[in-house]
Amino acid sequence: MSYFRPSVDAMTGYQPGEQPAPGVKVIKLNTNENPYPPSEAALQVLRGFDGELLRRYPHPMADSFRDAASQVLGVPHDWILAGNGSDDILNLLVRACTEGDRKIVYPTPTYVLYETLAEIQDTKVVEVPYNDDYNLPVEQLIEANGAITFIASPNSPSGTLVPLDVLSKLASHLSGVLAIDEAYVDFADYSALELVKEHNNVIVLRTFSKGYSLAGLRLGFGVANPELLSGLIKVKDSYNVDAVACAVGAAAIADQAHKNASAERVKASRAKLTADLTQLGFKVGPSQANFVLAQAPNNKAGALYQALKERGILVRYFKQPRLDDKLRITVGTEEQNQALISALTELLA
Amino acid sequence: MSYFRPSVDAMTGYQPGEQPAPGVKVIKLNTNENPYPPSEAALQVLRGFDGELLRRYPHPMADSFRDAASQVLGVPHDWILAGNGSDDILNLLVRACTEGDRKIVYPTPTYVLYETLAEIQDTKVVEVPYNDDYNLPVEQLIEANGAITFIASPNSPSGTLVPLDVLSKLASHLSGVLAIDEAYVDFADYSALELVKEHNNVIVLRTFSKGYSLAGLRLGFGVANPELLSGLIKVKDSYNVDAVACAVGAAAIADQAHKNASAERVKASRAKLTADLTQLGFKVGPSQANFVLAQAPNNKAGALYQALKERGILVRYFKQPRLDDKLRITVGTEEQNQALISALTELLA
Repeated sequence: MSYFRPSVDAMTGYQPGEQPAPGVKVIKLNTNENPYPPSEAALQVLRGFDGELLRRYPHPMADSFRDAASQVLGVPHDWILAGNGSDDILNLLVRACTEGDRKIVYPTPTYVLYETLAEIQDTKVVEVPYNDDYNLPVEQLIEANGAITFIASPNSPSGTLVPLDVLSKLASHLSGVLAIDEAYVDFADYSALELVKEHNNVIVLRTFSKGYSLAGLRLGFGVANPELLSGLIKVKDSYNVDAVACAVGAAAIADQAHKNASAERVKASRAKLTADLTQLGFKVGPSQANFVLAQAPNNKAGALYQALKERGILVRYFKQPRLDDKLRITVGTEEQNQALISALTELLA
Repeated sequence: MSYFRPSVDAMTGYQPGEQPAPGVKVIKLNTNENPYPPSEAALQVLRGFDGELLRRYPHPMADSFRDAASQVLGVPHDWILAGNGSDDILNLLVRACTEGDRKIVYPTPTYVLYETLAEIQDTKVVEVPYNDDYNLPVEQLIEANGAITFIASPNSPSGTLVPLDVLSKLASHLSGVLAIDEAYVDFADYSALELVKEHNNVIVLRTFSKGYSLAGLRLGFGVANPELLSGLIKVKDSYNVDAVACAVGAAAIADQAHKNASAERVKASRAKLTADLTQLGFKVGPSQANFVLAQAPNNKAGALYQALKERGILVRYFKQPRLDDKLRITVGTEEQNQALISALTELLA
């Protein structure tokens, strides 16, 4: 007999994007890290961190981080739940709210982890396909009646943002939780954060891995009313956020000027990258995130992915219907983007 | 209708021991932290950590930590799975192996989290009481036939260690996983680590929160054959260990001299604390951990807990059968232990 539950035996596990070792020289445009460094104020907190504090357990609710986030976001601190990355909060949602017929619903294509988490939890999934314009299929999502409905906005890999009135309509008609995953919101025109005040069933998720350039720190959080958070808190690890992440994250979120300046640079580069790719014959959808989804000319996406990799340039290629003719390309520094465009120019010549 | 699963609605959630804020002046002998500082080599890695590395995601398997641990432990690095504290590994075991009638079995009293994790997962539990001598009830544990059998050794709150031949016998007769939780092993006479080589179903769990004085860092790991680890890896978060914990933990485990010296000091103090408490009329069991379980004279444990708290001394009191006449007291510095003994002397006068 297997040691494992049947559903664990049956699954393959989530495959994160390639992460070359620190020494390996590649242009890494495959997992949507920010190309610019974290806040200097946050790095100073890291360098000056009193190691003696590590002797004790961290605060179970990461209170000093919550206080800093509360100030910046304008919500009370007990409306904030910190996690070991926003993936931790996604996991808590799935464990607290779903099982079997208490379904998980989301539009596709989207972040693959929602499906993985459902598999682990043995929860039924309803996937509702986006149409080609990536308008949210609201009626079908309502009809699917999930215990959780996940909406990534901006969405990955499409880079599209869902209008607030559409999200609000969806929240009003759902009896379960609406989880709005704003991992990429720092590069977008607007956020859905205000909806948590209007709808008891809405939770908004944020991460430090993208806009704040702190993917290695593992810090994210959810914002919702305390009653919705109460079920997640029961399920979470007692000390899910370490003392270093708590302190560095507090400094990082307080330094909005740095994060915003970094995001503006990325947005400017995104426009240039979009124009350059279009010039090369790619069809590039408008993006509100720090990546673009680009349909390759002559259906050559798979071959280009491979050829770029051989030249030390990593981009993301999803071998699945609707996406296997496209590349998802993280916006890098101007220099990195230029190296990509030069390589593509040669490869397409 | 509730947003949450019925089993989450029904549970109260794990209550970690009291964690006063860093500024609050208390003598904290309630959650078994090490009273001595972490390795200076580890703290140097923290101070010198290159914040730019935080921009990228950490290695999914915390490889640099695994390499360091592999050297120290004498097991191949793919026999090691790092976690966000050893609680993370406990959680992965429960999620990967158990549900419903795929039971969790453990002797009681023991670490309360095993029961909490079972509640979250909706897994049936079989608790087998220890007798008063804390000999392992092997036959009953075998008969209970768990998908996982958890044995904390040294056990909390008893401080007792299970002989290796007893653990080996148990492993041989179980068809499920035997998880040996060695959170306190750094203060014990021996470890069960070698059993992972003899038994495919054994996993040994370790933490940096006790012997290594790094509770705030959140780092632990499991050691087992790669096939047993494979199911846990499917369930784990993609990047469950952050880059700082990975680097600092690698330096900490490499500095065995520091950890051993710190543990020797604690063990010497444990002997003195045991003698002093005995002198005051406590019945103190022999402990292989960094705490003692002490039966209070005149059945005054609850009152003493409260009176100590009012004097700024925190110890742990479990209000449950078999334990409500005892205090679990973390071994502190000589000065802290002396302050405790002085307070108890006054209170018992």
